[in-house]
Amino acid sequence: MSHTIGSFLFDYLHKQGVTHAFGIPGDFALPTFRWLEESPLELITMTHEPSVGFAADGYARINGLGVACVTYCVGGLNLLNAVACAYAEKSPLLVISGGPSPNDRKHDSLIHHKVRSFDSQRRIFEEVTCAQALLLDPETAADEIIRVITAVRTQCRPGYIEIPYDIVDMPIKQPTIRNLPAPESDAENLEAALQEAAQAIAGAKQPVIVADVELARHGMTDLAVAIAEKLNIPIASTLLSKSIISETHPLYIGVYAGGLSEPVCQEYVESSDCLILLGAFMSDMFLGLYTAKLDRRKTIFIGSEKLRIGLHAYENVEMKDFLSGLATRDIAKKEFDNPYKLKPAVPLTDAERAETLDAESFFRIFGLTLAEDATVVCDTGDSLLGAIGLRTSQRNNFLSDAYYLSMGFSVPATIGAIAANPGSRAYCIVGDGAFQMTGMELSTAAKYGMHPIVCILNNDGYGTQRHIIDGPFNNIHRWDYIKIRDVLNYGKAMRVDTKGALEAVLKEAAKTDEMYIIEAIIPRGDSSKSLRRMGEKLGELRNKDKRK
Amino acid sequence: MSHTIGSFLFDYLHKQGVTHAFGIPGDFALPTFRWLEESPLELITMTHEPSVGFAADGYARINGLGVACVTYCVGGLNLLNAVACAYAEKSPLLVISGGPSPNDRKHDSLIHHKVRSFDSQRRIFEEVTCAQALLLDPETAADEIIRVITAVRTQCRPGYIEIPYDIVDMPIKQPTIRNLPAPESDAENLEAALQEAAQAIAGAKQPVIVADVELARHGMTDLAVAIAEKLNIPIASTLLSKSIISETHPLYIGVYAGGLSEPVCQEYVESSDCLILLGAFMSDMFLGLYTAKLDRRKTIFIGSEKLRIGLHAYENVEMKDFLSGLATRDIAKKEFDNPYKLKPAVPLTDAERAETLDAESFFRIFGLTLAEDATVVCDTGDSLLGAIGLRTSQRNNFLSDAYYLSMGFSVPATIGAIAANPGSRAYCIVGDGAFQMTGMELSTAAKYGMHPIVCILNNDGYGTQRHIIDGPFNNIHRWDYIKIRDVLNYGKAMRVDTKGALEAVLKEAAKTDEMYIIEAIIPRGDSSKSLRRMGEKLGELRNKDKRK
Repeated sequence: MSHTIGSFLFDYLHKQGVTHAFGIPGDFALPTFRWLEESPLELITMTHEPSVGFAADGYARINGLGVACVTYCVGGLNLLNAVACAYAEKSPLLVISGGPSPNDRKHDSLIHHKVRSFDSQRRIFEEVTCAQALLLDPETAADEIIRVITAVRTQCRPGYIEIPYDIVDMPIKQPTIRNLPAPESDAENLEAALQEAAQAIAGAKQPVIVADVELARHGMTDLAVAIAEKLNIPIASTLLSKSIISETHPLYIGVYAGGLSEPVCQEYVESSDCLILLGAFMSDMFLGLYTAKLDRRKTIFIGSEKLRIGLHAYENVEMKDFLSGLATRDIAKKEFDNPYKLKPAVPLTDAERAETLDAESFFRIFGLTLAEDATVVCDTGDSLLGAIGLRTSQRNNFLSDAYYLSMGFSVPATIGAIAANPGSRAYCIVGDGAFQMTGMELSTAAKYGMHPIVCILNNDGYGTQRHIIDGPFNNIHRWDYIKIRDVLNYGKAMRVDTKGALEAVLKEAAKTDEMYIIEAIIPRGDSSKSLRRMGEKLGELRNKDKRK
Repeated sequence: MSHTIGSFLFDYLHKQGVTHAFGIPGDFALPTFRWLEESPLELITMTHEPSVGFAADGYARINGLGVACVTYCVGGLNLLNAVACAYAEKSPLLVISGGPSPNDRKHDSLIHHKVRSFDSQRRIFEEVTCAQALLLDPETAADEIIRVITAVRTQCRPGYIEIPYDIVDMPIKQPTIRNLPAPESDAENLEAALQEAAQAIAGAKQPVIVADVELARHGMTDLAVAIAEKLNIPIASTLLSKSIISETHPLYIGVYAGGLSEPVCQEYVESSDCLILLGAFMSDMFLGLYTAKLDRRKTIFIGSEKLRIGLHAYENVEMKDFLSGLATRDIAKKEFDNPYKLKPAVPLTDAERAETLDAESFFRIFGLTLAEDATVVCDTGDSLLGAIGLRTSQRNNFLSDAYYLSMGFSVPATIGAIAANPGSRAYCIVGDGAFQMTGMELSTAAKYGMHPIVCILNNDGYGTQRHIIDGPFNNIHRWDYIKIRDVLNYGKAMRVDTKGALEAVLKEAAKTDEMYIIEAIIPRGDSSKSLRRMGEKLGELRNKDKRK
């Protein structure tokens, strides 16, 4: 079958396993949207571009490739923060933008949506994507498309394809490339690294693996778990990789985040004599805002871009080769007695049911009622830090932008997660401030008959910031959130301020096929212990040069 | 009094006539927000950064300088589309962003919110601002602040100042500069240009001035009107400069936009033998999507960056000097009989009151009930094009992003307009699609007790695009917009679908001090004549390479 540029692009994406695209049309992109509409992909149109980006990102984290389709500048530039988030957190998100015609470019005319030059948008996207293509030539378009998508998949970073409105309908020439070759390890370096690592692990009394998000992005979680199981080495996750392995796995010891961790996990990781950091982002949040006490000399660090064992860096060693090698090395099994006992869930007593809700109990009750196969998407703030102790039993069903920390991620990312995994009931935990940013994207859930359970933790303002520096700027206008159900004329909504009421509505919601908006009233100033620790730590940093 | 960087910055802005700043705090910006809170500026905190940008832009267009204050990356990058709009349409908008500490930079650590490098945000903003400063040194900070703000004011383009969280509290050194010198014209070129222009005007039978938006931005509207009145030359405005002069001025002949103009205005402008384009953006919208029939050889074009008379370009001539010179030249007064008669407003008949509302009558009724001193902010689409025929009697009380055309501009820009001109009742006209993008920003109106009258033209989807290429992607989920009143628990709301009901609610709203949300039901597919013309024209362009 002969293809146009438009039909080739979406057909190729479909063959790569993409089932949905997220977007908002605009006049420069309408011809592209027509091809998208006719393609095998299901198009989910949303209300506002920042949400399109987060939805496609959420989808990409689960599916392995996500697509955001928008118009030139007014669409693309409005997506930028979400694409920056995907870049920072290594999510394979492809941005497809409509664009002006090559004829417009010839005359340098002032066409609407243009900013400084015709290349402004592409130049800006160079800063937040790993590969870019402007499709001006049907002869090379197929190769360009494959080049960008291959880069997105292998580097797990966003990519950018811009298609002029009058080019997308043109017949495309068959591609001359299929996939770019995978990078290879330097064999000597690989062997030397494996020897040193094996020796370090063999000699260690208390080795521990921190399994971070690059494992999931690059499809190497199984390898990491196989190594852990073979050697009987415990595994911690991070805020960003939470749920990378089942949190009921006997080797799992919790979320490590320096001083923000659960104490048992922090103690175990920081007293380890052989810390194995797999796929880690060494970010300030990972390090618990620099409260982490980790000894480089006792650390094996492997990521997609770096391998370091103690003080020795090894160049040109691929993560996949290193992990495969380690999995087959002959190392004696370790002794390990998991200090992180899963406490049996304690149901609420009747007396507790009558009590006022608070942040800590929100997460306890949430955990009590959560189904095994549910997906949980958390926004920035207490929605994320309070969830540190939450246990989910299936892999990859916890999503959050735990490094980039852009508020407003969760509601649209929930839409993306539902599209990627419709069989799993999706929960969203979001603060009132973050909900005011993108919460109305529940409109899209209504449009496509999705039924997330959305918990708004209403602590009356920017709660995290109140712990850092408080002022009137942390106050927000109090919405009557449950009335949003009436605006959308969809789903159910309830406000709860007691533990019993929260438990009841969560149980009820889990049984139905309806969208739920649950406004959970949290007393102003109250927060989880983790958030309070983080707020106080950030408060110290931000107030270091305090005025007299 | 000795200043810190933070107190100096806001004090300097206040001395420049800025009364309000718009923003959303975040941890890197909290110390800056503390200074802002203590400064003479009133801080308006909003729900989402894209709205912060549009509000500050709307304020800047009226006040002459607007300020958006946000946090690093998650705030700044989310503002980008609005700043691009301000760049494209020459609005003097200053972006102040919090940033990481110089200490963070030294170690190139992965701090949260960071994208690719510490300079990612600044590099991105270079594409959409005319001046940038990263304040790392209290010794030079004052000069840097003055340099950026001066550039913003003189070039009428956005500027960018980034302040590390631990620098903003430091004592600042007194500035060594006050204001940069204004650029000067080349005297010979100026005189030659004036001679040629005067001669062309003197010899013309039907000269006409098109007064575009740069006049307003650079404070030269009075000069242009003085020239017109002295020589009795008629004035047209453009979509972007609509209301630059009173639309009841006897010399005013309407909005010129090529084939999208009102016919009388188009005919007069295009048959002119001396077209005087003052401060014009020669954009595709200005040219009515290239339907304009203008003869370069009979045109005098002066903008902030270019002067051309017929085929002669004159270098280094400042717009101000040229207009001042022209105003004092001795040229005989012209004959002019205004063909654009203001039809007396015809009230609705009782029979009409019972009729179903449509787009054309919306604007007729809106015009009938509009107070003299009202401000009107229009979003993209029919909200803008339908308003071409609307007459406002005061200057500069019509705002829209008529060139960049980013949907979602109007509701937040209305917030900005109210802050800049609280004495004028503000009306917002916005389509349902655009309202879903940023309409919840009415939360900010509620927070600060503002009372705009917001008319949502609900034509059930992306109406403009239906005229270009229609498909399911132009459908949106239908909100029950008047329930937003209940979400915000503020103001009044009403849905109207007859001409009489619209008239009644507009009259009622004008009398009260309440925010009104008016959902005006427009039949799907119906639109103003101007929009239909534009849609058809764009449909031709976008379908030029139609598939077989």
